[in-house]
Amino acid sequence: MVQTMWDLLLTNATLATMRDNSPYGLISDGAIGIHSGRIAWIGALADLPIAEGSSAREIHDLKGSLVTPGLIDCHTHLVYGGDRAREFEARLLGKSYEEIARAGGGILSTVNATRAASEDELVKAALPRLDALIAEGVTTVEIKSGYGLDTENELKMLRAARRLEHERAVRIKTTLLAAHALPPEFKDKPDDYITLVCEEILPAASAEGLADAVDGFCEGIGFSCDQMRRVFDKATSLGLSVKLHAEQLSDLGGAKMAAGYGALSADHLEYLKPEDAGVLADAGTVAVLLPGAFYYLRETKLPPIDALRAAKAPMALATDCNPGTSPLTSLLLTMNMGCTLFRMTPEEALAGVTRNAVKALGLDGDAGTIEIGKRADLCVWRAGHPSELSYMIGHNPLKMRIFGGKR
Amino acid sequence: MVQTMWDLLLTNATLATMRDNSPYGLISDGAIGIHSGRIAWIGALADLPIAEGSSAREIHDLKGSLVTPGLIDCHTHLVYGGDRAREFEARLLGKSYEEIARAGGGILSTVNATRAASEDELVKAALPRLDALIAEGVTTVEIKSGYGLDTENELKMLRAARRLEHERAVRIKTTLLAAHALPPEFKDKPDDYITLVCEEILPAASAEGLADAVDGFCEGIGFSCDQMRRVFDKATSLGLSVKLHAEQLSDLGGAKMAAGYGALSADHLEYLKPEDAGVLADAGTVAVLLPGAFYYLRETKLPPIDALRAAKAPMALATDCNPGTSPLTSLLLTMNMGCTLFRMTPEEALAGVTRNAVKALGLDGDAGTIEIGKRADLCVWRAGHPSELSYMIGHNPLKMRIFGGKR
Ligand SMILES: [Zn+2]
Ligand SMILES: [Zn+2]
Repeated sequence: MVQTMWDLLLTNATLATMRDNSPYGLISDGAIGIHSGRIAWIGALADLPIAEGSSAREIHDLKGSLVTPGLIDCHTHLVYGGDRAREFEARLLGKSYEEIARAGGGILSTVNATRAASEDELVKAALPRLDALIAEGVTTVEIKSGYGLDTENELKMLRAARRLEHERAVRIKTTLLAAHALPPEFKDKPDDYITLVCEEILPAASAEGLADAVDGFCEGIGFSCDQMRRVFDKATSLGLSVKLHAEQLSDLGGAKMAAGYGALSADHLEYLKPEDAGVLADAGTVAVLLPGAFYYLRETKLPPIDALRAAKAPMALATDCNPGTSPLTSLLLTMNMGCTLFRMTPEEALAGVTRNAVKALGLDGDAGTIEIGKRADLCVWRAGHPSELSYMIGHNPLKMRIFGGKR
Repeated sequence: MVQTMWDLLLTNATLATMRDNSPYGLISDGAIGIHSGRIAWIGALADLPIAEGSSAREIHDLKGSLVTPGLIDCHTHLVYGGDRAREFEARLLGKSYEEIARAGGGILSTVNATRAASEDELVKAALPRLDALIAEGVTTVEIKSGYGLDTENELKMLRAARRLEHERAVRIKTTLLAAHALPPEFKDKPDDYITLVCEEILPAASAEGLADAVDGFCEGIGFSCDQMRRVFDKATSLGLSVKLHAEQLSDLGGAKMAAGYGALSADHLEYLKPEDAGVLADAGTVAVLLPGAFYYLRETKLPPIDALRAAKAPMALATDCNPGTSPLTSLLLTMNMGCTLFRMTPEEALAGVTRNAVKALGLDGDAGTIEIGKRADLCVWRAGHPSELSYMIGHNPLKMRIFGGKR
């Protein structure tokens, strides 16, 4: 007979474990035992080994509430300076893109504001956005650089992102996105900028351990596949994982190219050829779908969900939180958008912010499902069934958030 | 020299008064004096008559924060039984409307659940939805009946709605929407049901003082203009204001008909003929736009915003919160949808949930703007400019909510 001592025992829960084996991996009348920040036991309440000598420091009766893995936002640009509300307004008042650019708007306004901000200011500006995510049960957030566009400022963004982990009970994964846009000082010289990215920015970020992955914006208005290959070759040589903004506005074949590098994810994908879905599936590259940008930009071309589903490519959902094309800080709303706009099922939406979102971050052994040995990052919801999380719009039924075993 | 004693004085505010005279009626470095639940003074801080002997029991330095009128959600179906999350899921899993109806889904599932619920249960079920609205600074909510569809249950819904006003610091306006759908017991006999509405339900609601207005669903799949005229004639004879769900899915001329009755509002309006916008303007009938239902139903036909704007028809925005076509409980998100999906300006969006929303409820002398004599229903926001409220998606920057002068 083993004497088990858990730090926390949750009882009378409806568990959406998100293990693969049934819809939502549901366990009714379930219980979870937590020890040293990890899940130590899960199962039906009736099978709880209490009688055999188990005990827990704290027992919490959830009275039937739904428990899911902590939510994971696997694609954000949460750290930036300034805001673009006045630009949003100018657009709606009929100003053209050109007029807005002349008035200092567009992505370069964010680059300028981000370069002008100190690391402290970037942390302070990001906190309300991070708090909005956390308030909905997010426990892991990916944050990209990409508004610095030079060594000093890209590294400053990544340092600010890393610091957020110490400001709040949340896990941060950082991604170097120096190949996001062409900085003004490299106008008409994109290859020279890519050289700077490969020769200076990437090695510097790697040397300081600031980047968990490397990303780029592969698009007619961004960088070409050839340019991104140079970045990915360098990243690979430094032992860094890669991922790519691909096929958002046109089909350059970026997702397929990234899959060739074993990319963690290819993100956006509205213009992905359905026949390329299998390439992602084979490479284990997660299709990260970003309905917030689709909504905000009033796009009409849908990502090939049916093809991705048929190919069994893992699909994730993320906010893409950024000031220019997706000023969205609600992952629950993102789930609803995934269902409403992209016709994903509520189960795919929940998998997209848990089980598949961790895959997009290379963390899939560690979190994203409720299984023994995984991190005890959990959400307790005022809900009876997990479909409710995707169904409601603009509602936050979070009752309790557990991060690393701690409430 | 007058000795003024205010209960509360807010200083260092950016006031979006929403008076007609300038963008947002903005006053920088402003102050508001509140007395007996009403706004007693507004103006620039520099003009504050402190020096002449004014004083305040409590002074609150807002350090530049934005102050707007309390938000008003002028079209909701907040009180109902059951939920439709599983139906949402079934649709996304490929089930047809017919299969769902056969399995007991659709509006009749809400009617059955609402009829089965006690008044207490309806209050309890509505509270989380009401709390979500209140958390974003909503101070007045309109709530419709329409899932009872018989005298007993329509009145039960209205009583539940009225009770919410005592459960929370919020003002509730009730609307009798007995002409919402055909109850199963009147299948194929819509005129007989309208007779019941006119002869029994309406007089009963009026006798008990339960309805502030009378509404109907005028649509090919709802009731005809002729049927709604019978309801409106009765409502008018009882001294009740009218409003109408019109032109959501087709153009039956309902908005024009309602304007002929001096309706407070015509709601939805995607299929309104642009040339009918002037009719609404002339009648003072508010065009209440409901982008949540447009979004949820993936509609593509936009309401004629340009024509409404040109005709100077007052435009409001509301959640339309209901389980079947708009499970939306965020008025801030509704503002973003008004801008993003309908191309309203952020100023029109804010007017739509303040100045014009009160008009849709017949309360325009009393609230909806920051002016002397009006109710001190106010929101203080972590924002520098009112455009930010419409720009952000899924973010709640509410800092303080003042209802009837009380925090
Ligand atoms: Zn992005
Ligand atoms: Zn409605």
